[in-house]
Amino acid sequence: MEPKYLFRRYAEVQNEGEDDMINTREILAENVHLSEDGKSVVIIDQTKLPNVTEYLTLSTAEEMYRAIKELQVRGAPAIGICAGYSIYCLAQQITESDFALFYARFKKDKEYLDSSRPTAVNLSWALKRMESVVTANRDKEISQIIELLGEEAVSIQREDIEMCRKISEYGLSLLKEGDGILTHCNAGPLATSRYGTAIGPMLLGNERGMKFKVFSDETRPLLQGARLTSYELQKAGIDVTLICDNMASLVMKNGWVQACFVGCDRIAANGDAANKIGTSGVAILAKHYGIPFYVLGPTSTIDMNCKTGEDIVIELRDEDEIRSKFYEKPMALKEVKCYNPAFDVTDHELIHGIITEKGILRPPYTESLAKLF
Amino acid sequence: MEPKYLFRRYAEVQNEGEDDMINTREILAENVHLSEDGKSVVIIDQTKLPNVTEYLTLSTAEEMYRAIKELQVRGAPAIGICAGYSIYCLAQQITESDFALFYARFKKDKEYLDSSRPTAVNLSWALKRMESVVTANRDKEISQIIELLGEEAVSIQREDIEMCRKISEYGLSLLKEGDGILTHCNAGPLATSRYGTAIGPMLLGNERGMKFKVFSDETRPLLQGARLTSYELQKAGIDVTLICDNMASLVMKNGWVQACFVGCDRIAANGDAANKIGTSGVAILAKHYGIPFYVLGPTSTIDMNCKTGEDIVIELRDEDEIRSKFYEKPMALKEVKCYNPAFDVTDHELIHGIITEKGILRPPYTESLAKLF
Repeated sequence: MEPKYLFRRYAEVQNEGEDDMINTREILAENVHLSEDGKSVVIIDQTKLPNVTEYLTLSTAEEMYRAIKELQVRGAPAIGICAGYSIYCLAQQITESDFALFYARFKKDKEYLDSSRPTAVNLSWALKRMESVVTANRDKEISQIIELLGEEAVSIQREDIEMCRKISEYGLSLLKEGDGILTHCNAGPLATSRYGTAIGPMLLGNERGMKFKVFSDETRPLLQGARLTSYELQKAGIDVTLICDNMASLVMKNGWVQACFVGCDRIAANGDAANKIGTSGVAILAKHYGIPFYVLGPTSTIDMNCKTGEDIVIELRDEDEIRSKFYEKPMALKEVKCYNPAFDVTDHELIHGIITEKGILRPPYTESLAKLF
Repeated sequence: MEPKYLFRRYAEVQNEGEDDMINTREILAENVHLSEDGKSVVIIDQTKLPNVTEYLTLSTAEEMYRAIKELQVRGAPAIGICAGYSIYCLAQQITESDFALFYARFKKDKEYLDSSRPTAVNLSWALKRMESVVTANRDKEISQIIELLGEEAVSIQREDIEMCRKISEYGLSLLKEGDGILTHCNAGPLATSRYGTAIGPMLLGNERGMKFKVFSDETRPLLQGARLTSYELQKAGIDVTLICDNMASLVMKNGWVQACFVGCDRIAANGDAANKIGTSGVAILAKHYGIPFYVLGPTSTIDMNCKTGEDIVIELRDEDEIRSKFYEKPMALKEVKCYNPAFDVTDHELIHGIITEKGILRPPYTESLAKLF
């Protein structure tokens, strides 16, 4: 049976007027999607960004495994979406018509993909969700099961888009035409699908013809702001200015910033928010200059078992990321020691609002968060 | 006549017990000095730091010109010192015994060296000072004039050392054993002679057996903190930890910093201080965490004609310093615009004290600065 063509490029869908949440920009439309014949997964190769924009067509299990393992696709939600489409494509390749044989082969493919990045939660979450489609429909024909798998893969992406869209909508309600927004690190389309979180409001507003000026901290040492955020915004046609992290103070002093929007990795029950290293510094500068500071993320990021930021353990990373990574030659003596924390915690008192898909939470967070759950 | 051996390596002098302001560490002793035979200038090649520590012996006018032009020696005071020794060495090579002929050749060498970096104030200041030794002693024998030139060159360096030493002494009076100090950019021995300004207190204290923990901001985009400050401190045997600029907030929050010491490029009459980009951010973080923030520099940096920081023009530099400099491959799209200010101004209200060779100035600075002049 010919697989149903489930997922078309957004640009095409838009031309047909079928979808009201369309973005015509290349980067937003084509991060992770099915090929035109619906048999392969197409991804943007993130390891080559920002110098080369290259799409990879993944058709075999080995190609899919490598894409996830080697970070050609990265960002927890994007990995989950890619895994969903991947296992759907692999299921189409199974020639068995007997359910037990089909399921055995499906399970083998699933476990192989799942082993590509053992610690990525969204990867195994998406694969488990796909497997449950198979087991819940064991009485149906294989061709029907494959069709349902395709629909489930699309749902995974649609739900992520919808969640990001809601966050973006709430965030956008805080902005007005011409605003300057400062962001740190990357919480955009490349890590998710379509809008992303922290830069979603600007992408959504841009679709509606609003103009913003975005300042993207380069975000040392891994430069996600330079490599990814400024790339996404530039490709989306938004006015973006890349700055070094230590320039944020002057940019704010110049009066160019009306709001700070950042993503988050974990939010404690009192509103303390862990995010990429440097976020707490941005929040302190924003307070000094009287600029509102917002944290954007799905409610799944809120960890009510975590009382305060004190409970969040900060990952320490390789010192060479500071001394030599990305450089032509090392920039510090090998024997100079470095402190390289990956995250910091922003005190809840510095946060004007936490923007989720369920609305904007305001202080006191112990109350607004408790009410939410 | 055999030129008098005017300037020996500090280590030798120390062995003879002749000098009470000795530092035995390689980097402090050998930044810029005369060769053993007194006929050449020896410098550390700063373009090769931190990967290679290489000394260059400059004997010809062309070598001296190139060393200054190509930043093998950099830092305004260090350039002035190098120029003084250079013109002294070149004067020794003049074979004329007639004053007019000697002076004509001297003047030619001086103008050649002076053209190596037209905007470096200390360069022409030092060369003019050397020239005035020649013109003021035209009645003396050439050999005597050369001897006086050697003494003047040593004086230029000795005065710089003395000035840095006094600043360091005042700065050290604010520290106690075991303190953590955060510094930004480079205001150390490589840019001056011996102690430098902002890191002078730690170097001086270290000579006296005191222990400190210094945190050096890497200082994007030109990485002076990584390339130079952490190098100097490591070579001096001081406990130094290199961090990315955006990590300063967490380092302070951890309770590791008891004082911030930074250099300055210009100080206005109200105490506003211009320094390397990012300095104002450090000052705001320090205020947030209740940590005293000090600016260190010679009184020559104070510009009473400058009423406030508003009068200080901020140099904007090449955008590629952010996008691609030092990297193996560019880290942002060429079309992404960047804002690359070289300096920012720290508001006088954030500064606990301005440490000069004449003492520590305290707020209100309009009064303490006016009193000084």
